[in-house]
Amino acid sequence: MPKHYEELGFAKVDHHRCQRKGFPEVIYCEGKTPAQVAKIAQKIWEHGHDVLATRADRKTFLSVKKALKVAHYHETARIISAKKKSESRKQRSDIRIAIVTAGTADLPVAEEAAVTAEFLGLEVERIFDVGVAGIHRLIKNLPKIEESRVVIVVAGMEGALPSVIGGLIDKPIIAVPTSVGYGSSFKGLSALLTMMNSCAPGIAVVNIDNGFGAAVMGWYITRGD
Amino acid sequence: MPKHYEELGFAKVDHHRCQRKGFPEVIYCEGKTPAQVAKIAQKIWEHGHDVLATRADRKTFLSVKKALKVAHYHETARIISAKKKSESRKQRSDIRIAIVTAGTADLPVAEEAAVTAEFLGLEVERIFDVGVAGIHRLIKNLPKIEESRVVIVVAGMEGALPSVIGGLIDKPIIAVPTSVGYGSSFKGLSALLTMMNSCAPGIAVVNIDNGFGAAVMGWYITRGD
Amino acid sequence: MPKHYEELGFAKVDHHRCQRKGFPEVIYCEGKTPAQVAKIAQKIWEHGHDVLATRADRKTFLSVKKALKVAHYHETARIISAKKKSESRKQRSDIRIAIVTAGTADLPVAEEAAVTAEFLGLEVERIFDVGVAGIHRLIKNLPKIEESRVVIVVAGMEGALPSVIGGLIDKPIIAVPTSVGYGSSFKGLSALLTMMNSCAPGIAVVNIDNGFGAAVMGWYITRGD
Amino acid sequence: MPKHYEELGFAKVDHHRCQRKGFPEVIYCEGKTPAQVAKIAQKIWEHGHDVLATRADRKTFLSVKKALKVAHYHETARIISAKKKSESRKQRSDIRIAIVTAGTADLPVAEEAAVTAEFLGLEVERIFDVGVAGIHRLIKNLPKIEESRVVIVVAGMEGALPSVIGGLIDKPIIAVPTSVGYGSSFKGLSALLTMMNSCAPGIAVVNIDNGFGAAVMGWYITRGD
Amino acid sequence: MPKHYEELGFAKVDHHRCQRKGFPEVIYCEGKTPAQVAKIAQKIWEHGHDVLATRADRKTFLSVKKALKVAHYHETARIISAKKKSESRKQRSDIRIAIVTAGTADLPVAEEAAVTAEFLGLEVERIFDVGVAGIHRLIKNLPKIEESRVVIVVAGMEGALPSVIGGLIDKPIIAVPTSVGYGSSFKGLSALLTMMNSCAPGIAVVNIDNGFGAAVMGWYITRGD
Amino acid sequence: MPKHYEELGFAKVDHHRCQRKGFPEVIYCEGKTPAQVAKIAQKIWEHGHDVLATRADRKTFLSVKKALKVAHYHETARIISAKKKSESRKQRSDIRIAIVTAGTADLPVAEEAAVTAEFLGLEVERIFDVGVAGIHRLIKNLPKIEESRVVIVVAGMEGALPSVIGGLIDKPIIAVPTSVGYGSSFKGLSALLTMMNSCAPGIAVVNIDNGFGAAVMGWYITRGD
Amino acid sequence: MPKHYEELGFAKVDHHRCQRKGFPEVIYCEGKTPAQVAKIAQKIWEHGHDVLATRADRKTFLSVKKALKVAHYHETARIISAKKKSESRKQRSDIRIAIVTAGTADLPVAEEAAVTAEFLGLEVERIFDVGVAGIHRLIKNLPKIEESRVVIVVAGMEGALPSVIGGLIDKPIIAVPTSVGYGSSFKGLSALLTMMNSCAPGIAVVNIDNGFGAAVMGWYITRGD
Amino acid sequence: MPKHYEELGFAKVDHHRCQRKGFPEVIYCEGKTPAQVAKIAQKIWEHGHDVLATRADRKTFLSVKKALKVAHYHETARIISAKKKSESRKQRSDIRIAIVTAGTADLPVAEEAAVTAEFLGLEVERIFDVGVAGIHRLIKNLPKIEESRVVIVVAGMEGALPSVIGGLIDKPIIAVPTSVGYGSSFKGLSALLTMMNSCAPGIAVVNIDNGFGAAVMGWYITRGD
Repeated sequence: MPKHYEELGFAKVDHHRCQRKGFPEVIYCEGKTPAQVAKIAQKIWEHGHDVLATRADRKTFLSVKKALKVAHYHETARIISAKKKSESRKQRSDIRIAIVTAGTADLPVAEEAAVTAEFLGLEVERIFDVGVAGIHRLIKNLPKIEESRVVIVVAGMEGALPSVIGGLIDKPIIAVPTSVGYGSSFKGLSALLTMMNSCAPGIAVVNIDNGFGAAVMGWYITRGD
Repeated sequence: MPKHYEELGFAKVDHHRCQRKGFPEVIYCEGKTPAQVAKIAQKIWEHGHDVLATRADRKTFLSVKKALKVAHYHETARIISAKKKSESRKQRSDIRIAIVTAGTADLPVAEEAAVTAEFLGLEVERIFDVGVAGIHRLIKNLPKIEESRVVIVVAGMEGALPSVIGGLIDKPIIAVPTSVGYGSSFKGLSALLTMMNSCAPGIAVVNIDNGFGAAVMGWYITRGD
Repeated sequence: MPKHYEELGFAKVDHHRCQRKGFPEVIYCEGKTPAQVAKIAQKIWEHGHDVLATRADRKTFLSVKKALKVAHYHETARIISAKKKSESRKQRSDIRIAIVTAGTADLPVAEEAAVTAEFLGLEVERIFDVGVAGIHRLIKNLPKIEESRVVIVVAGMEGALPSVIGGLIDKPIIAVPTSVGYGSSFKGLSALLTMMNSCAPGIAVVNIDNGFGAAVMGWYITRGD
Repeated sequence: MPKHYEELGFAKVDHHRCQRKGFPEVIYCEGKTPAQVAKIAQKIWEHGHDVLATRADRKTFLSVKKALKVAHYHETARIISAKKKSESRKQRSDIRIAIVTAGTADLPVAEEAAVTAEFLGLEVERIFDVGVAGIHRLIKNLPKIEESRVVIVVAGMEGALPSVIGGLIDKPIIAVPTSVGYGSSFKGLSALLTMMNSCAPGIAVVNIDNGFGAAVMGWYITRGD
Repeated sequence: MPKHYEELGFAKVDHHRCQRKGFPEVIYCEGKTPAQVAKIAQKIWEHGHDVLATRADRKTFLSVKKALKVAHYHETARIISAKKKSESRKQRSDIRIAIVTAGTADLPVAEEAAVTAEFLGLEVERIFDVGVAGIHRLIKNLPKIEESRVVIVVAGMEGALPSVIGGLIDKPIIAVPTSVGYGSSFKGLSALLTMMNSCAPGIAVVNIDNGFGAAVMGWYITRGD
Repeated sequence: MPKHYEELGFAKVDHHRCQRKGFPEVIYCEGKTPAQVAKIAQKIWEHGHDVLATRADRKTFLSVKKALKVAHYHETARIISAKKKSESRKQRSDIRIAIVTAGTADLPVAEEAAVTAEFLGLEVERIFDVGVAGIHRLIKNLPKIEESRVVIVVAGMEGALPSVIGGLIDKPIIAVPTSVGYGSSFKGLSALLTMMNSCAPGIAVVNIDNGFGAAVMGWYITRGD
Repeated sequence: MPKHYEELGFAKVDHHRCQRKGFPEVIYCEGKTPAQVAKIAQKIWEHGHDVLATRADRKTFLSVKKALKVAHYHETARIISAKKKSESRKQRSDIRIAIVTAGTADLPVAEEAAVTAEFLGLEVERIFDVGVAGIHRLIKNLPKIEESRVVIVVAGMEGALPSVIGGLIDKPIIAVPTSVGYGSSFKGLSALLTMMNSCAPGIAVVNIDNGFGAAVMGWYITRGD
Repeated sequence: MPKHYEELGFAKVDHHRCQRKGFPEVIYCEGKTPAQVAKIAQKIWEHGHDVLATRADRKTFLSVKKALKVAHYHETARIISAKKKSESRKQRSDIRIAIVTAGTADLPVAEEAAVTAEFLGLEVERIFDVGVAGIHRLIKNLPKIEESRVVIVVAGMEGALPSVIGGLIDKPIIAVPTSVGYGSSFKGLSALLTMMNSCAPGIAVVNIDNGFGAAVMGWYITRGD
């Protein structure tokens, strides 16, 4: 049996994941030191895989940058990425995913989804600030949403946008509640419950602020095409 | 100082309320025996006021019916009412209130609001089953909603309907979450939070399943006209 | 503009949904009387669509049966269905969906998903009682899961099964928490949170006990193929 | 069809809202950068509308001030406003709204409501620090409250003030729970639940700390007069 | 060392409690069979103590009645009591405790407190149905409340009554939230939080529906007099 | 590779568990029909293992009894058991486990633990009704507790008993919160949190009402001896 | 009717409270600026009353000190006090109140209670760090507790101390949950629920960290003596 | 009766604990000043016991270091320890405890457990970063886990790891939920509920982030060997 992971002491890098799950281990930076992230990133890169690190602050990026010159920082998305020129993963830029937000404050989560989706080879259609309080903005953008294979809907506060879109189009919708809001939004709990209870068909939900997870779910959906 | 209330031992009937608040004490039947409700109803009636009893089951109605021949039972709304022929309260049938529901299961709450509003002299426009999962049903009924002075929106599960209507019309909206749903609707908590967090302006919320309270709030709003 | 829905007073049947969303309005029976369900079912059928009614007890089925001779009752799934012989919807029996449960008590939710998926023309692979407490049962069934286009994972109590499957296969997973359990399972809340927080990529979650919603999400995913 | 909104990339400014809802889009500053707020404010102003930006800190104000010389900062209310001299909106200074607080710590929320109401052309009667623990302070101020068309009641901790006022006057009451308190006030949840469960008729509730929303609801109520 | 308790297998009757805490062990009937309650009651009685059993249904009473002829059932309070003619406990009928309720539905809890207080030798002043929605009813009864040594205030729903009374009188107040209400009252949680967060001085709270505990706390307070 | 489980369609009986985990699969009856339980019990028995079925009502027992004559019903514990005469499992009657309850209402959970422990070959010391409100009852029984290898402490309501015992003895304590109580006990949540937050060393907690799980944990602890 | 309060714009100082409730208005500093606190303190002092300000940081103290030379700061208790030499309030130093804590981290809350009680003229017996994990420390201090008229018990984490003391003594106990702890202590919620559900008689609870409220409740209890 | 504890005013050091519970009082540093910790540490040391202080920051360590030259700081574990050369406690380095984590971010909690276990004389096997999303990493390490007497499993987010391990091995498992995660992990609540509801036998749970408590529970388990 071949060695499936690399032991770093504080972490076991899962080089086998690419074969098993279709893409290499992604680094979730929160709770890891910049040095730990840089070390893991380097190991993944040396093993011949592309690197994606989420929830990264600028300090972590600088640490990774030293170890990996090609690393790039996506500020709003808080993502560090590094891609091989001759990437082995089949490019799917013919497949489009729409990323829709209710408000401007949902941007960091939406960009986390967008940068991840682009990293995975999808074409991203960004449609921002079309919340239900001004539904004509949504209606105008419906055709662009309908042309996509999958739709990610990002919304905080009341989180009603996925339900409305779900009643209008016939694509699978991945709903992402955000912690945007105050008072009884309870840091995204309100939006999460709204999305969970949607009457519209074809909606499933990921964790609060989990733009990355939404993009990966979207990518798995497109893999069967 | 005149006697403001009547002592029944288990209750103090507030005959003064009509002068103070504009309408007589309403009987909330839950937690009261049929005999207690009948006794209170009779005292209110004898004092020259109309009678309204909410959350009444059929057994309670039969008990009231014996004491008060003119009592009428509204089955879906679970309300008992009795009105004087020459009612002293100024009829306001020129003022219209719209009562909108997301689904069919919201009917009992919506009817509680509707019967209460009619009892208070308002004209009620019922618009049922226009939830956000089929938004064209709502759009078609917008003109009727816009002709109303106040709009009551009743919705369970994700409770997104008030937000959507709130983005489209310029009337005050009273949102009523209902306990309709299952799982993470948590008996109306999900809908309540959604409505509380609405981005649309001009929305305020009453308790879960409180159709009566919504109608009374609506009536107070119209009193200044 | 054509008439998009049919007014029944207590409900507005959305005949246009089939064109907009790909399949006709489904009847959610809870909160509706048997007579109301029968009436709506009949209208949908007369309009040329197949009928699917979820959360139906036997009494509701008998009421529907009278109005619609071809109606069939799926006991464990609590579903009433009626299909036209020459169904217009393109059969997709070449596309397989796996429905996996952690335990025996999750069966009603899993069957709700399975019957819905079959109604929508998918081939269903049932893999029941393979929870994480005996993981060899899961490992043995992995090949069957991997041959499916989409995987629905149904689990109550700790709800850990989607995470484990998510680490092993490269298909999109729809996780369904169930209200199975006692004590601190809090009627499915524990399982819901577990699934929401999954570290494994490619998982999205629907409402507690929402087998129907999972199947529909699965069907939308397969539509792009 | 005319262009209803202006695309700024990170936001879609809804210039049509004034026609649809009666007043222009308001800027909610949290989650937006000072530069973004300034850009949106400028666009709204250039389009001929007055500007109102809530939850603004001083840094955001300075950014807006550069773009819009006439901008004014209301410190306690955390609001930026800018009004055209010849405002198109009909002044309603003949209509009075009372804003009542339970304690001194509720002032920022009360001022958010007051400044918003004044911006919308209402006359505001401020009645602060009349909580139920010293009810004679409330009784003394009842006449001023009763002369108002609508009453906004702002309270944290136990949040009992709306119930008490609701039993004494015959005006519509908009209750605003605040996050004032500690321990089991749970950042306003306690006050929110108290207000939701009020036995007094004619009360509806907005989100915790949502002074702005209360004022807008109050303004919609007065529009029908 | 003397034997402090009596072993019944399923229970250890604490005969020593009277010496330690001032009154004998009270039987909480929920979760005990009628036969178990009867057995414990008999043992307490035989040991020379008076008997008090709370949360008792009629069936349990009949079982106790067989074992203890002098047992008496207080229906509304759901209490079984049996007192020795020459009771050893010093009668305190010169000390008065006021028991105040917000509504009629709070009666069972209030009566549990009242019957317990009377059993403990206190004089009880019952003041029912004086909730904050009709505050004049409360004001009229203030003198009777002020003449008491301790005040128990029983209220459900918004639970605001203790705060209002606490602002008006200078006696210690024991607040009892009740599970009366619906929707967001969450079975007494709302009232409990309201009472916990009271701004008025001199209030402490017991468990939801715990009329018994309130009376015992009241009795301990009077013991130092 | 040998066949590890037996496929019953609705269940996969894990015959391999005995080798892997030390004892055969236990049947959790809730959510299973009497017929399903009987079938699984029979399969386990036929495979040469003893049978233990928890949360079983009398109806389920009668169904099992038909299939398995030697089955025995433990009423209070709600357990069905059947043991081979020449059991292969090594008897451990030299090892004692103490099962302590705070009150009489905790008995069903305590008995579930006791019957399970006895089934697993442990000697059980039952010490019931020694809650903290009468701590001398506990002190008297301390020697018996200290002679045990492991202590299971079962308590509802405030759940303080494990903390107190934990401060007095030097044995590992397994704390079982029960759903006994009312009001803010929130069906065991209060007791669970108390036990989780215990300051005393050497305490770990299982699910609310999970007497079975506590006994199994106790048994695993003794296995290393 | 005399003027009952003094209008400061941001506050209404309740000079009448002393007559109505027995002691002057206390200043709760959180949410008030140092300048506001100083202004209110000065007004109370000028009106002839002693001053007590709780939850005060050092900065607030310095502001008060400028206005009121005699002001004193109790660091651990976070209280500012100022007393007239010839205080009108009857000194009660013959009456003793015990203040007991479970741990060292509960000190700030216990000191808030102690300083308040001393301000109100009571003699305070401090008994700190006698939590249930080392119950012999408690037993040793029981006599001192029993000599007190009232007992305040301050505890965080599992909050079991009031239950244990309540089973041992015959004095009224005021339980104060603290926010001390981590994880599932949920900032005092765990301790609050424990205390609410206490089986021991004679316990009532105040808000989390509310040492002040506990002392005032204790003082009211002693007033009847 | 000998003096069981030492009075420091702010704390009562429990020197008797070692005899009663098997090891000396441990200092929990949160909520204590560096000076208080140093004082308590010194007293314990002078009394002849080893010192263990948890949740200590570097500042506290420096304060202790001054008083106790031999003190050592474990950075990741946030623990201060000081051991006598000729320790009286019997070394148990022949008994091994496995400490397993799901991810890298769980390290501080795992190290708190590991350092505590080593302090108590156990041999620790660290197995980090083997979460369920890459289950082959776990499978590879199973033999090392199975060789241990007790297993501590540390996991945040979905917290599924104890369930999976519990299905594979026959050792007692102590599950430690961590506050690692975001969104609906609710600071460890999700992981706590998952672990509480585990279907696998032989698992008990300690407080969120309570590595210390897990190690002590593990140590008590091994003491009977």
